[in-house]
Amino acid sequence: MTTDRSDLPNVSDATVSEIGEFSVIARATDQRQQPADVQVGPGDDAAVVTIDGAAVVACVDTLVEGRHFRVDWSTGSDIGRKAIAQNAADLAAMGAIPVTFLVSLGCPADTSVAFTDDLVAGLWAEAARFGAGISGGDLVQSDQITVSVTALGSLQGRTAVLRSGAQPGDVVAVAGELGKSAAGLHLLANMNSDSLAPFVDCVHVHRVPDPPYTAGIAAANAGAHSMIDTSDGLLADLSHVAAASQVRVDIETALLPIPSAVAEVAEMAGVDPLDWVLGGGEDHALVATFASHQTVPAPFRRVGSVSAGSGVTVDGARVEQRGWTSWRRTE
Amino acid sequence: MTTDRSDLPNVSDATVSEIGEFSVIARATDQRQQPADVQVGPGDDAAVVTIDGAAVVACVDTLVEGRHFRVDWSTGSDIGRKAIAQNAADLAAMGAIPVTFLVSLGCPADTSVAFTDDLVAGLWAEAARFGAGISGGDLVQSDQITVSVTALGSLQGRTAVLRSGAQPGDVVAVAGELGKSAAGLHLLANMNSDSLAPFVDCVHVHRVPDPPYTAGIAAANAGAHSMIDTSDGLLADLSHVAAASQVRVDIETALLPIPSAVAEVAEMAGVDPLDWVLGGGEDHALVATFASHQTVPAPFRRVGSVSAGSGVTVDGARVEQRGWTSWRRTE
Repeated sequence: MTTDRSDLPNVSDATVSEIGEFSVIARATDQRQQPADVQVGPGDDAAVVTIDGAAVVACVDTLVEGRHFRVDWSTGSDIGRKAIAQNAADLAAMGAIPVTFLVSLGCPADTSVAFTDDLVAGLWAEAARFGAGISGGDLVQSDQITVSVTALGSLQGRTAVLRSGAQPGDVVAVAGELGKSAAGLHLLANMNSDSLAPFVDCVHVHRVPDPPYTAGIAAANAGAHSMIDTSDGLLADLSHVAAASQVRVDIETALLPIPSAVAEVAEMAGVDPLDWVLGGGEDHALVATFASHQTVPAPFRRVGSVSAGSGVTVDGARVEQRGWTSWRRTE
Repeated sequence: MTTDRSDLPNVSDATVSEIGEFSVIARATDQRQQPADVQVGPGDDAAVVTIDGAAVVACVDTLVEGRHFRVDWSTGSDIGRKAIAQNAADLAAMGAIPVTFLVSLGCPADTSVAFTDDLVAGLWAEAARFGAGISGGDLVQSDQITVSVTALGSLQGRTAVLRSGAQPGDVVAVAGELGKSAAGLHLLANMNSDSLAPFVDCVHVHRVPDPPYTAGIAAANAGAHSMIDTSDGLLADLSHVAAASQVRVDIETALLPIPSAVAEVAEMAGVDPLDWVLGGGEDHALVATFASHQTVPAPFRRVGSVSAGSGVTVDGARVEQRGWTSWRRTE
């Protein structure tokens, strides 16, 4: 577990893992003066910046070998596609669509060209889903393979949907499937490759997420009050929404669909499938809140509600933040 | 030296270092279909992409510990400032100014918060030179400290100045100083810290480049035909201009200013100072070409001319590409 030392007087003597990812980011961004052309700064799925009168939606996310992927579990193409997909999901969570991507690739000098060719093919293939391409980047030598992708997108005139807009009385709804990536990770970590065939769907989602991109646009068009992509896990991401919106988010497990493959793998693993549905990361589903009087747009499904207060509850019981962060995964 | 295996039939059996950085990038970008909204794609200092009718100038550059900086040679603040400066220099080389930056920081779990605080302070300090800030980013755990910066900028109505616009008859002109970063690197690598005081200027430029940002705008306003920032070294970067413009670039060493500090360090080191002025990387000066009939805008100074042909000559003698690339520095 992360030790919370963020309130210590001499926090600068601490290490990054001691105070945790979110505290380091808070120290980098809190109380900074953003220029007027930054409509949305750090703390949401993506930034929104006015450039020559246009609202440009931008985000960056990095995959690191051994932490976010393993080359014995994923092909180069899988890694390239995942690097694009997780950024495109962040844009979708704002109600934006990608226009172009930039890629910084770090790799050891002895990396095979076959691997980099395959990775590049994956980048382009996933970008092509939006009619976009890779318009720039750089290549550096590094000890670990590192793929840092910047996505630039357009709202096409829509209003950006933020984490901070949830209101008491809202309906909470999910688009996309939850728990599959965690189930896939469990399978890859615990079973030999010959045994994976019946669960290829979960394994594939872990390697290459399939975010419900168009649902993000549908939510924005429907006037969603808030939205986030489930990269850290449903409860962890909803805790961000609750904090940013200063509301309480209540989830009803009876409303949460458990994919049958997730249920099967969980039974095999002897774990509660809800652990993966509520806490598993990297599914890149979308969670949005809508005014209660309006119809939730397909493919969103209601899973809970928003009320006055703070934090997240599951079936009425308050939960501590769950899900993993980049730092916690080490332990 | 890099072995050029890019023309082998089974190049995919080769490694990245065997075919070299530029061949890997060429394989990632050549013959790819860019959508119509990409005005300038890979192969220039930055991309120019139309988003909601605006021309957005974007680039990404990454600094890797042990390759582009050493934590015993540079403070966190130095590294943060350098990471911003080298990207802002790329925008300047297009005639653009930064509007905002995104930062992906990778570091080991035991990195001190004092270091990340200092690095972040450097990022913000350099961004503040443009009235810009850090509007987004991410933080990941990695074995090496890695700082990947994306710069987004505006042309403010100017036409982007490309590498490909040089024309026979053009004057070649440089803004900024050359050779200081290489001299500073030599000093850091060969002298103990007590002996650096007389040459603090070169050492500082190596740690934190000071690109002539406003000169890029002046060149664009003056209608420069082509421009590039000298990140790889003057001759290496001019070879990119020569190739992109399908011209020959001729440099006259008698016109090249040699900073006195560079001359002093070179004499002490027993090397020709021109080696550093012509071949040293990371100075982040700007080199532009202008029609011969026009006045070269300050602070640019003429250092040569453009003629029909190919490649780069120095005092009439053809030179092979010099300067270092990310991969060559390993050797």
